[in-house]
Amino acid sequence: MDAEHTPPLFRPTEGGYRWDGVAYQPYKQDGSAPFKDISRQTLFHDPSLGCELRYFEMDAAGYSTLERHEHTHAVMILRGHGQCMLGDRVVDVKPHDLITIPSWTWHQFRATDAEPLGFLCMVNTLRDRPALPTDEELAAMRANPDVARFLGG
Amino acid sequence: MDAEHTPPLFRPTEGGYRWDGVAYQPYKQDGSAPFKDISRQTLFHDPSLGCELRYFEMDAAGYSTLERHEHTHAVMILRGHGQCMLGDRVVDVKPHDLITIPSWTWHQFRATDAEPLGFLCMVNTLRDRPALPTDEELAAMRANPDVARFLGG
Repeated sequence: MDAEHTPPLFRPTEGGYRWDGVAYQPYKQDGSAPFKDISRQTLFHDPSLGCELRYFEMDAAGYSTLERHEHTHAVMILRGHGQCMLGDRVVDVKPHDLITIPSWTWHQFRATDAEPLGFLCMVNTLRDRPALPTDEELAAMRANPDVARFLGG
Repeated sequence: MDAEHTPPLFRPTEGGYRWDGVAYQPYKQDGSAPFKDISRQTLFHDPSLGCELRYFEMDAAGYSTLERHEHTHAVMILRGHGQCMLGDRVVDVKPHDLITIPSWTWHQFRATDAEPLGFLCMVNTLRDRPALPTDEELAAMRANPDVARFLGG
């Protein structure tokens, strides 16, 4: 990388879970979006590292996309409280909890109605694209009462 | 991995920057140790990920090893305040600051005298071993007044 494209080695937080020189990427939202009020910031993306570290944040009552994929996620909650659906389990999460999302496991995060939920997610830089559930897969998930309660509606 | 060796998918924090089922590894210390009052916990070590995520913590007035290596570190401060030496720079650090430590850059972290300093460090799973400075290299570093003040003594 030439100097112009070398990221700074030190990025202070600006406070409020934003970082100096890190792009804030709200997810584009329309009526059919499978997520709600969530943003991504890629904290580390370095060609010499096999992984990226991203920070995702949902507003109160927001949620991430319900999806699965071949690649693994390694997650640490950084702020707020909420729930994580992890296959057939639903767990309450709080700051500094660790969650491993294995290959091809359906997963979704939801913030409580009271506060934003933010988490770090380490992921291989080279990875496959997520798959969304079909109506049949969603119906099968909802057969689990804990999952049905988590998914709501 | 067989079931016995599969790590749990959800590891709640026990509070106090410790995690359920994560080994706490204090660095063995004797008179000649090049570090002081520091521990490591490997939060994620998954064969499907190219990186590990570790949590290092120094007690108040503690410091990490002054070292360099081919591999890159991606660091996020998680708790406390202190300083980081990064080549010929010394920067004050606080929670959520991000630091990239490039290949072959001398680096060290120091906690203030007032409180522990803890940080996350993402690193390639396959990496080289760190090198310690020779007396000549240390003398050359100390020619920089900021670095000399940081290293003390």
